[in-house]
Amino acid sequence: MKLILSILRFSAMIEVGLAYEKKLIELRELIYLESVSRVMMEQCSSLGKAALLIAMAEGDLSDSYIDYAREKGFAVTSGKVGSMDIQKIIAAIETAGRREGLVDERYRSQHALYHAILDALQGLGRGQIQLGNVLRTAGLRFAIVIGPRTLQEKDDLWIAVGLYGMIGAPIKGHEHEVCGLGINHL
Amino acid sequence: MKLILSILRFSAMIEVGLAYEKKLIELRELIYLESVSRVMMEQCSSLGKAALLIAMAEGDLSDSYIDYAREKGFAVTSGKVGSMDIQKIIAAIETAGRREGLVDERYRSQHALYHAILDALQGLGRGQIQLGNVLRTAGLRFAIVIGPRTLQEKDDLWIAVGLYGMIGAPIKGHEHEVCGLGINHL
Amino acid sequence: MKLILSILRFSAMIEVGLAYEKKLIELRELIYLESVSRVMMEQCSSLGKAALLIAMAEGDLSDSYIDYAREKGFAVTSGKVGSMDIQKIIAAIETAGRREGLVDERYRSQHALYHAILDALQGLGRGQIQLGNVLRTAGLRFAIVIGPRTLQEKDDLWIAVGLYGMIGAPIKGHEHEVCGLGINHL
Amino acid sequence: MKLILSILRFSAMIEVGLAYEKKLIELRELIYLESVSRVMMEQCSSLGKAALLIAMAEGDLSDSYIDYAREKGFAVTSGKVGSMDIQKIIAAIETAGRREGLVDERYRSQHALYHAILDALQGLGRGQIQLGNVLRTAGLRFAIVIGPRTLQEKDDLWIAVGLYGMIGAPIKGHEHEVCGLGINHL
Amino acid sequence: MKLILSILRFSAMIEVGLAYEKKLIELRELIYLESVSRVMMEQCSSLGKAALLIAMAEGDLSDSYIDYAREKGFAVTSGKVGSMDIQKIIAAIETAGRREGLVDERYRSQHALYHAILDALQGLGRGQIQLGNVLRTAGLRFAIVIGPRTLQEKDDLWIAVGLYGMIGAPIKGHEHEVCGLGINHL
Amino acid sequence: MKLILSILRFSAMIEVGLAYEKKLIELRELIYLESVSRVMMEQCSSLGKAALLIAMAEGDLSDSYIDYAREKGFAVTSGKVGSMDIQKIIAAIETAGRREGLVDERYRSQHALYHAILDALQGLGRGQIQLGNVLRTAGLRFAIVIGPRTLQEKDDLWIAVGLYGMIGAPIKGHEHEVCGLGINHL
Repeated sequence: MKLILSILRFSAMIEVGLAYEKKLIELRELIYLESVSRVMMEQCSSLGKAALLIAMAEGDLSDSYIDYAREKGFAVTSGKVGSMDIQKIIAAIETAGRREGLVDERYRSQHALYHAILDALQGLGRGQIQLGNVLRTAGLRFAIVIGPRTLQEKDDLWIAVGLYGMIGAPIKGHEHEVCGLGINHL
Repeated sequence: MKLILSILRFSAMIEVGLAYEKKLIELRELIYLESVSRVMMEQCSSLGKAALLIAMAEGDLSDSYIDYAREKGFAVTSGKVGSMDIQKIIAAIETAGRREGLVDERYRSQHALYHAILDALQGLGRGQIQLGNVLRTAGLRFAIVIGPRTLQEKDDLWIAVGLYGMIGAPIKGHEHEVCGLGINHL
Repeated sequence: MKLILSILRFSAMIEVGLAYEKKLIELRELIYLESVSRVMMEQCSSLGKAALLIAMAEGDLSDSYIDYAREKGFAVTSGKVGSMDIQKIIAAIETAGRREGLVDERYRSQHALYHAILDALQGLGRGQIQLGNVLRTAGLRFAIVIGPRTLQEKDDLWIAVGLYGMIGAPIKGHEHEVCGLGINHL
Repeated sequence: MKLILSILRFSAMIEVGLAYEKKLIELRELIYLESVSRVMMEQCSSLGKAALLIAMAEGDLSDSYIDYAREKGFAVTSGKVGSMDIQKIIAAIETAGRREGLVDERYRSQHALYHAILDALQGLGRGQIQLGNVLRTAGLRFAIVIGPRTLQEKDDLWIAVGLYGMIGAPIKGHEHEVCGLGINHL
Repeated sequence: MKLILSILRFSAMIEVGLAYEKKLIELRELIYLESVSRVMMEQCSSLGKAALLIAMAEGDLSDSYIDYAREKGFAVTSGKVGSMDIQKIIAAIETAGRREGLVDERYRSQHALYHAILDALQGLGRGQIQLGNVLRTAGLRFAIVIGPRTLQEKDDLWIAVGLYGMIGAPIKGHEHEVCGLGINHL
Repeated sequence: MKLILSILRFSAMIEVGLAYEKKLIELRELIYLESVSRVMMEQCSSLGKAALLIAMAEGDLSDSYIDYAREKGFAVTSGKVGSMDIQKIIAAIETAGRREGLVDERYRSQHALYHAILDALQGLGRGQIQLGNVLRTAGLRFAIVIGPRTLQEKDDLWIAVGLYGMIGAPIKGHEHEVCGLGINHL
């Protein structure tokens, strides 16, 4: 009789345990997503941070940041560009902004984007807005983010351009990181 | 008899459940820390990213990033500085670097730090390394990180200076975000 | 009899002549004003030209240009500033813009004005936004003009800052002319 | 008798009136030219103003300003150039200066012109002497004026280069005004 | 007898005189070399002076300076480059540095050389690192010197790039001298 | 007899030898001066080289170069200045130029000198004409040289400003060499 009871008790425990273990696996992923969200909430609280973090993020994390920023009310687009020509980098970012509808066909919104790009390129060039002319090449990820300057001031639209990537000689591995952030009123 | 068996089974389930619930609470925090670490591992994989993420992080997250970067073998220091004078910003970063032993008393390491700071300031000034002269003030967090350019090339020492903060007119709220990154061989 | 008729005819002629002469004097001034207006209409057909012409005009002409520009729908303010400090020049223009209500208390309109001023100062400094630091002083007239970029596109608001004056050594007569124009979307 | 006298008086009045009316038509044009001249005299009193006003003037006004400046003793040439290449703009201005005899074949006068052009281009580029490299194009009118710095100091030769036009993206209508002024001793 | 003695005395004098005259000819060249060495010792006492003097020297003097600098423990290479393209000048100096073994294949030494070149080019461009874009061409001699900053501090390696030559319009004789010096820690 | 003859011969030889030895001492100094002159002739053949070599020379050599340059028809002045303020460096050079009569009281000659100084300072600042603002100090020797661009073109007056010295942090020994050359038509 005792044996039967023990078996019964044990099988009940296993039953619950298995359910919990299953739940734990689900939970671990859930908590991971919660945690990423918590990190993002702390990190990604303003226009410029959103643009920089999206430009710096790789793989899945990139999508997570974009989703999070959009959820918070920012309009976002991002992309990649590698070139020795500054004008190709500018064109790639302008095209992404237009294609994704972040800027419209009016000159004023494109003027705002253009000068945010130029400001970001100053961080890239550190004194010279030049690449091929000074024998450098750059491989970059960029993000354009539109929204209020901070999550507190909802009614004020600004534009941020974040750049992150590698700059260097046209020799593999001869490069280091570089970043830039440009912010303008829209 | 059946009732007794049911109670027995139920009490066994509760016993296991309580243990799991308790474990879950512990786990949630553990998984959060694991998750932060996973986010950091993806984000903070190189010298420049480390410097930028530490400069951008606030509160607990700042310490988490610093701990993570140190664990990965980077030497790190960070701080805050607000001023209308570029030279005070330079001095604050240089002093932090010296005080924390990231640069030694030899001119060459201080020369490397100085030019990493100047490069980071180009992102801040976007064309002019000036603040008060052009009626601007800046409130910044900075990070100095020393280590290999990436976690793969262990034997090569470089220095990164990351700057993040607000730049604007000397009127409350009249400011926007700004960042800078300077990288130099050590 | 003939004499009387001659006198009569002559006095009639004088009467008309005097009236016309009087009319001519009035007309001359009227035609001058018409002509100034015609010159202005040809000269002052866009935002930037308005800002430059007002900054360049002296005495009465200055008021004429301001009146003309206001009549055409531009908001205008102008002033004078002389200094060895770039920040004093910026402050004088910003204060005039705020006091005259051309920019409001929101950061975005002041951000637009600030960067229009910085752009105008690039023409002044020709490569360096510096004055006293490079042993120069400047005496300037400035104009802030708000309106559409041209008289044809009425619904689009931009801001222009025009600067005109003398730059030179702090020695009387050791100076030459300098000008600058900055334009930004509002 | 009274009627005859009235008719006589009236015909005399008409005779004088017609003469005056005819005179008025002539006068109106004359006074317009006088007025333009008066405006010019007030506006165009120095080397740099002459260069800027000629660069900014359109149609007939352009010729009027050139004539006026030449009459006052300035040597003047002007032209148009549109390009994405800074070197083409420089070449167009240098060629105009040489062709019109404002600078001679000696290097020193061409050196003076070249640096006046570079200074004017700083106003155009506002921080960067670049166009196509930063995806911009410019359509400009330029003026080269040689003479004393002001009409008072007759014996001192300087050179001024004035630039005025539109800068923008290579998209129709996506452009705003820009100006530049460079002055050098000859 | 007296005559014989006089002749004897005279021939002895001539014998010694001839030996001395021969010695003097040798000495003159020797003293010249000593003197050049003395001039060099006074002139060429540090890294930057060595780089500048080698870049400025012509013909035999160039080799003398290089020999002297090598003797003192500096590693030296030099060369010539003429171009309207900044990137060709950079490439020529980088190639010389690599070919002569002054920099090795590691990125860090090439990063040090690159930024020393950029710094030297600032002296060349005086505000703009541009040549063809601003319609200028340059004919240069360059020197790369590696060693301690001064002959007193033997254990500290730095790199200097000296540039000297002519800059001007692409017209024969329309050019003036230009120089640049860049120094970086290695 | 043989002995007497030997003594006689020997004493004659000594007599001549002593004269020659004395002559040699004189000669060595003479040949040194000739050699310095030969080095200078090769080195100091143009306006810019003269300005740089005088700025770089120390002690006696400095005077030798100045004397040589004056002999060749250049007007020369030189001096020392150490400061964290760019304006003090400019003032020191301008004052030396005026005091020594190289530039007269007319604005045009001072304008030529001022821009030659600014150009030289670009080599010093390598991208920024700033010192104290970026926490640097400089100790410099300068030379102003007036004359033809080369010794071949006698009738053409230009001005050169050469700068050479140390730039660094306000910490003893934390500095490296720096140079600058500015050339302008007079």
